[in-house]
Amino acid sequence: MSTEARDARRYHALPSPFAMKRGGALHGARVAYETWGRLSEARDNALLILTGLSPSAHAASSPEDPSPGWWEGMIGPGKAIDTHRWFVICVNSLGSDKGSTCPASVDPATGRPYRLSFPELTLEDVANAAFEVVRHGLGIERLACLVGCSMGGMSALAYMLLHPGTVRTHVSVDTAPQAQPFAIAIRSLQREAIRLDPQWNGGDYDIHAADGGRYPDIGMSIARKLGVITYRSAMEWNGRFARIRLDPEQREDEPFGFEFQVESYLQAHAQRFVRTFDPNCYLYLSRASDWFDIGEYGGGDVMAGLRRIRIERALVIGVSTDILFPLEQQEQIATGLEAAGARVDFVALDSPQGHDAFLVDIPNYSRAIGGFLAAL
Amino acid sequence: MSTEARDARRYHALPSPFAMKRGGALHGARVAYETWGRLSEARDNALLILTGLSPSAHAASSPEDPSPGWWEGMIGPGKAIDTHRWFVICVNSLGSDKGSTCPASVDPATGRPYRLSFPELTLEDVANAAFEVVRHGLGIERLACLVGCSMGGMSALAYMLLHPGTVRTHVSVDTAPQAQPFAIAIRSLQREAIRLDPQWNGGDYDIHAADGGRYPDIGMSIARKLGVITYRSAMEWNGRFARIRLDPEQREDEPFGFEFQVESYLQAHAQRFVRTFDPNCYLYLSRASDWFDIGEYGGGDVMAGLRRIRIERALVIGVSTDILFPLEQQEQIATGLEAAGARVDFVALDSPQGHDAFLVDIPNYSRAIGGFLAAL
Repeated sequence: MSTEARDARRYHALPSPFAMKRGGALHGARVAYETWGRLSEARDNALLILTGLSPSAHAASSPEDPSPGWWEGMIGPGKAIDTHRWFVICVNSLGSDKGSTCPASVDPATGRPYRLSFPELTLEDVANAAFEVVRHGLGIERLACLVGCSMGGMSALAYMLLHPGTVRTHVSVDTAPQAQPFAIAIRSLQREAIRLDPQWNGGDYDIHAADGGRYPDIGMSIARKLGVITYRSAMEWNGRFARIRLDPEQREDEPFGFEFQVESYLQAHAQRFVRTFDPNCYLYLSRASDWFDIGEYGGGDVMAGLRRIRIERALVIGVSTDILFPLEQQEQIATGLEAAGARVDFVALDSPQGHDAFLVDIPNYSRAIGGFLAAL
Repeated sequence: MSTEARDARRYHALPSPFAMKRGGALHGARVAYETWGRLSEARDNALLILTGLSPSAHAASSPEDPSPGWWEGMIGPGKAIDTHRWFVICVNSLGSDKGSTCPASVDPATGRPYRLSFPELTLEDVANAAFEVVRHGLGIERLACLVGCSMGGMSALAYMLLHPGTVRTHVSVDTAPQAQPFAIAIRSLQREAIRLDPQWNGGDYDIHAADGGRYPDIGMSIARKLGVITYRSAMEWNGRFARIRLDPEQREDEPFGFEFQVESYLQAHAQRFVRTFDPNCYLYLSRASDWFDIGEYGGGDVMAGLRRIRIERALVIGVSTDILFPLEQQEQIATGLEAAGARVDFVALDSPQGHDAFLVDIPNYSRAIGGFLAAL
């Protein structure tokens, strides 16, 4: 048995300098991506996936990296995103620490990690970096389909608006045309938990800390738990956890320690996340989500912004139990894209899992996305 | 102009020892309360209000304390809870630091604050302490009405179940018959933010800290902000804050500092709260809310527990935008009390303010509560 980690990532070098929307530029930056399936000779079967805040480019397993991807149930031969037909690309967002240049990367100008000297990051920059991979890295003029999930759905709107004519169809999953104040409040509090952790130290913690290093574990843990709470739904948890207690031996032996199963569920999620996602990257991507507003491109009006997007067809999916990206926001996207001239299917699901339903309720999302793609 | 704080609180000494549900007892404990209006000769016009987690007994102004109370719009001459007719009592919960014995109080056995040596607190203890005020402090055999808001609604269910025959009618406001996992998760994370703040120090901070003292400001601030987020609603904030930015001079001059109005709104709420509510008291009352389950009195079944409550009439109010105590939980209470033989009015409001609507949407809550009380 080999213990060597297998890796399917490829890297595309961004033009240097790579100008950022709010000013500044990156030098010698790169974007990590993975692909599945084969690009047709006509180069007309490419499907790009833009991710949520935390996932890597590893959306599905492959011979080069057989570990399950974050959307394993959706992508593969015969699956909803059928790799027999589509050349599937998944890009790690610029600013994320899963292979792309990010605040934890070394700044070539100083030889030391950027940390907070990384330029201000927006989802438009994420979109532009992904566009570079597709256009110049893979030589694809036009995507057959652009899929965006959660934060990636906002990046996808930016992509289509900033690069007109380069996307034929769009699948919008559990996302929004702009950040609304409830989501901003949640993300602001997540950032604050990290910022106020003395171990964050103004961004100057041990990036590759072993367990002993200086690292904002507490802030990251609180941020992640708040994330998980808002990614799921009360309805799901009533059925799943109810008021089930932990066994006595599972309880923490400290005052006000965990007692209910739901508490240890959150703790397990936090423990998996805290040291595997760079805190400064988290802050940059979280703020980029707050800043996003397609209305900027429509004189302050979301609908006017959406009407500037030119595509042929779209599928917009949302879920009624999503408290972070409520269904009304997907309705806005559907209405706006339709007003722009696209043929739009709008699917409102009742999956109990909340915002994360797209990662969990694979049957319903497969039916919607698979049906849409099969009809193209 | 007098700078003297005026105080309308009275105090009732609890029987000593006062046994606690989960074991242990308090010695020399007391409960703070305020009253408005006059007790009739027949002693049949008493209306008791049990509060949410943080309010004091000062529900309304009075000549002795003219400062506005936390339910000022609801209580007074000619208001929904009309003090011309009702003798209104509001009790500060046992375990709260607004005059009642609590973890910040001095333990007579040691001469030092209880802190975490305070016995485990439940809402049944809160209810029993309030009962002592009514029965032995004020000599009232039977309440004309028991009103419970939020956490106080759970305490009220405990009161009616544990003291059968002492309540004629009930008004249940934005509450639940048991804590569900979403609410438990939120409260657990609030407690964790406090517990993990090094300044909490296992409960041994400076209770009467001036700004310089050792005190878990960060944990309390995060806990309060998370509270405010879950007490309000996304719908309200879309209309109220949208994506309005702070003026540049209002922004924090630090990395990832506040930029949106909704962020400074949360900050203002937190600043008002952090040093005015004792952190250990917060932990005790928060955990008491998680523990509450009327189902305990029905062999694990909520409906069976509710069916043990004997009252004549009830009004149950909930609001569709409440994410902490969802409307289904008020429906459960209404159904259960009706099955127990009460005549029940159920009012589902669409107020946009979420759980806090009872504090804000005074017109609609007045109409419901005033109408119910006027018909008694």
